[in-house]
Amino acid sequence: MRVAFQGEPGAYSEQAIFDYFGEVKAHPCESFEAVFESVASRDCDAALIPIENSLAGSIHRNYDLLLRCDLHIAGEYFLRVRHCLIAFPGIGKKDIRRVISHPQALEQCAAYLRALDVKIEPVYDTAGSVKMLKESSDQTTAAIASRRAADMYGMQILEEGIEDNMENYTRFLVVQREPVTPDGEAKTSIVFTLKNQPGTLFKALSVFALRDIDLTKIESRPLQGQPWDYLFYIDFIGAAHEEKVRRALDHLSELALMLRVLGSYPRASQ
Amino acid sequence: MRVAFQGEPGAYSEQAIFDYFGEVKAHPCESFEAVFESVASRDCDAALIPIENSLAGSIHRNYDLLLRCDLHIAGEYFLRVRHCLIAFPGIGKKDIRRVISHPQALEQCAAYLRALDVKIEPVYDTAGSVKMLKESSDQTTAAIASRRAADMYGMQILEEGIEDNMENYTRFLVVQREPVTPDGEAKTSIVFTLKNQPGTLFKALSVFALRDIDLTKIESRPLQGQPWDYLFYIDFIGAAHEEKVRRALDHLSELALMLRVLGSYPRASQ
Repeated sequence: MRVAFQGEPGAYSEQAIFDYFGEVKAHPCESFEAVFESVASRDCDAALIPIENSLAGSIHRNYDLLLRCDLHIAGEYFLRVRHCLIAFPGIGKKDIRRVISHPQALEQCAAYLRALDVKIEPVYDTAGSVKMLKESSDQTTAAIASRRAADMYGMQILEEGIEDNMENYTRFLVVQREPVTPDGEAKTSIVFTLKNQPGTLFKALSVFALRDIDLTKIESRPLQGQPWDYLFYIDFIGAAHEEKVRRALDHLSELALMLRVLGSYPRASQ
Repeated sequence: MRVAFQGEPGAYSEQAIFDYFGEVKAHPCESFEAVFESVASRDCDAALIPIENSLAGSIHRNYDLLLRCDLHIAGEYFLRVRHCLIAFPGIGKKDIRRVISHPQALEQCAAYLRALDVKIEPVYDTAGSVKMLKESSDQTTAAIASRRAADMYGMQILEEGIEDNMENYTRFLVVQREPVTPDGEAKTSIVFTLKNQPGTLFKALSVFALRDIDLTKIESRPLQGQPWDYLFYIDFIGAAHEEKVRRALDHLSELALMLRVLGSYPRASQ
């Protein structure tokens, strides 16, 4: 089995693939577009994409791609993100003058970095920052990335768990060509558009509230070419084949201009 | 009057300041944090911040800053974003080998750039890309930015309106230290949190639907330190001092754990 992810080897997404799938081949891609494309074109069997971080919020690009590509959500996985300060072996924390990483990782370690009193420089990727550091042979620079990235490039971890807020989780979605029918507790993700009229979103949410269906997430995205009209993405507890959910979606289709089920899948615990 | 914006002189935000305020001093800031700080510290009288683009979606960082800073929304403005291909005077389109701009501008002109068959390179800012081009003296590179940026740096516009989708608008918000009480048609922006229970968002929206108050936008952002709990940002038609709105907000305060009015302000037309 071949599973695509965005980023360099050692990325948090790659870690999430091994946690979720076990022994598979993880296939690195440059962009999220390339990740989706690799599954659509049958180059990969599935992909694992980050959809939301508990501190930084949604990865909106992936919401857009879920709509554009005709793929299905088949699972979810929560990864606890633990950032490491990584440098060349033999280097001490006091030798570090500069720290590089992805802007989001730098921001999540902002208080730690302020105390360290170093120059901060954003680069394109977390695991990529370790790769760049290795190639540069720079003994006074450290990178911020996963333990896995440090091991992969034979680098030293100066400190682990340097994020300012410990409640740092990323929710990943498994994306594949065929839908699944989950047993047991499930989640369903849908996307829809509504007429731009007063009260339509309230009516749309009523199809769930009237049936005691629990929403776990609502996200709005711009509808291309129709300024200030929106796509709504909703996640809720339940599977599309359950009677209650089937009726709710049927009811929603009366109100929605467009409605698509992106997938029902086993609910993961954090 | 001194109004802060994020970006280099010639930025779309600067254009929006002159459109909205007329003759004022526009004060460029490096980051959105610096923009908010310049108003809070009384260095500037107001700021104009982009909050949403009709193609790219919300500028989530500014939603976070609206909550963090104790400032008020006092107005809104819609700017039609028209991208220009900009090069040194005397250069023709056929001489161009490379195009630089902010990643969002590059993406909004993706089809145009594909037809041009050039190398594409993201840089930190649209107006900044013209500044960089000017400083580089590179005759084979073009930048994508506003007409204003081209004029400011004495550069030539090779083509105007090169965006793939003409429905390209950015909504800006005026932010200042004191709230305003708008006459005439108004909008109000609020932020609130809810108990994580089934149906609470539906109940929250009911306070508006039951009073025929029209929502224009809903946005969710992560609540820091409480994974998968959310802040909800809502814009609706009406001013906080109107009886109907006052009652709706009073009703919402029964359901919300936290509720803050970010401001009522005159509604702008697109």
